[in-house]
Amino acid sequence: MFHRGELTVATQRRGTYDITREVAKIVDESGVRDGLATVFIQHTSASLIVCENADPSVRRDLETFVKKLVPDGDPMFTHDAEGDDDMPAHIRTVLTQTSIGLPVAGGKLALGTWQGLYLWEHRTSPHRRTVSVTVIG
Amino acid sequence: MFHRGELTVATQRRGTYDITREVAKIVDESGVRDGLATVFIQHTSASLIVCENADPSVRRDLETFVKKLVPDGDPMFTHDAEGDDDMPAHIRTVLTQTSIGLPVAGGKLALGTWQGLYLWEHRTSPHRRTVSVTVIG
Amino acid sequence: MFHRGELTVATQRRGTYDITREVAKIVDESGVRDGLATVFIQHTSASLIVCENADPSVRRDLETFVKKLVPDGDPMFTHDAEGDDDMPAHIRTVLTQTSIGLPVAGGKLALGTWQGLYLWEHRTSPHRRTVSVTVIG
Repeated sequence: MFHRGELTVATQRRGTYDITREVAKIVDESGVRDGLATVFIQHTSASLIVCENADPSVRRDLETFVKKLVPDGDPMFTHDAEGDDDMPAHIRTVLTQTSIGLPVAGGKLALGTWQGLYLWEHRTSPHRRTVSVTVIG
Repeated sequence: MFHRGELTVATQRRGTYDITREVAKIVDESGVRDGLATVFIQHTSASLIVCENADPSVRRDLETFVKKLVPDGDPMFTHDAEGDDDMPAHIRTVLTQTSIGLPVAGGKLALGTWQGLYLWEHRTSPHRRTVSVTVIG
Repeated sequence: MFHRGELTVATQRRGTYDITREVAKIVDESGVRDGLATVFIQHTSASLIVCENADPSVRRDLETFVKKLVPDGDPMFTHDAEGDDDMPAHIRTVLTQTSIGLPVAGGKLALGTWQGLYLWEHRTSPHRRTVSVTVIG
């Protein structure tokens, strides 16, 4: 069985957006009981991560860390056509994920207890982001 | 064809644990000759990597590097409920992999000569880790 | 439906090599209209990334950034049997991807407008690199 779904996320600013429920809904609609859901983001300045979903301080600290690791406006960057956060957004994307394969069991995403799936917007301004979900089972 | 297997790894401490053989066993049991094995770890403070498997110094240097990149107890972290290694474990996980898709050919994992699949425990204390393997072919 | 293809990339030096077209060709040959193409690189000192494909300065800045993040010949590395770039190549691989799942729609790779798939050679000398493509649909 094969099913393709798509979701659009309107991001407000840089940060993480929980998309677990929307992806689970596409899996549910697919009718697939046991298989694989591959989530793919069609952008190079926003990415996907699986992260702890209980305490928001985890994702705040993650942002603090990455902001220090890849500073906006670092003079080493020559690609800044869209601003100080342009090149850092591409690097942050490459250091995380564009595609993640998730197990599907009993018609649901078989995630661990504290796992959430997040879209990570790396640009500081709002964007519309498209995520595709391929369900095979 | 579809098959799901699971393995549990009892980690002793922070470090890399070779799970190539256990995953290959699940692939063998699946009966799939040619397809895809997607390995997924159900945690946010341990991750998966494909790494050189010949010289242990590679994984020692990797640990040295990441320990310096994401220092335990860095005062920038506010999330430290479970200790100095709590937030670094989440970051190390996000910078590596939660899910890896491996080709299956002739009933075996089609890895390169020097590739091993490792579970990387990022917490300093022992943990029980669950890894699921989805085989499709 | 299942199809396996393989491509070989003769790298000249450290840097990114666009393999989008070669992978799309294998997808086309597979006859799969809608499904998943999983690209896997059989090495631990070269990796895969999805990156912006319009402005080459993005990939130049990416190289600059990673070269600073993981310096060749850093005295913290003990594994240097193959030279100053040996251990950095393994680390750069672990921080990026060995395997990426790409959606296939209408017989084509369903990438975003500015997305390209690149093989990233992390060694400074030329290498022959093998990439396998598993198409399921």
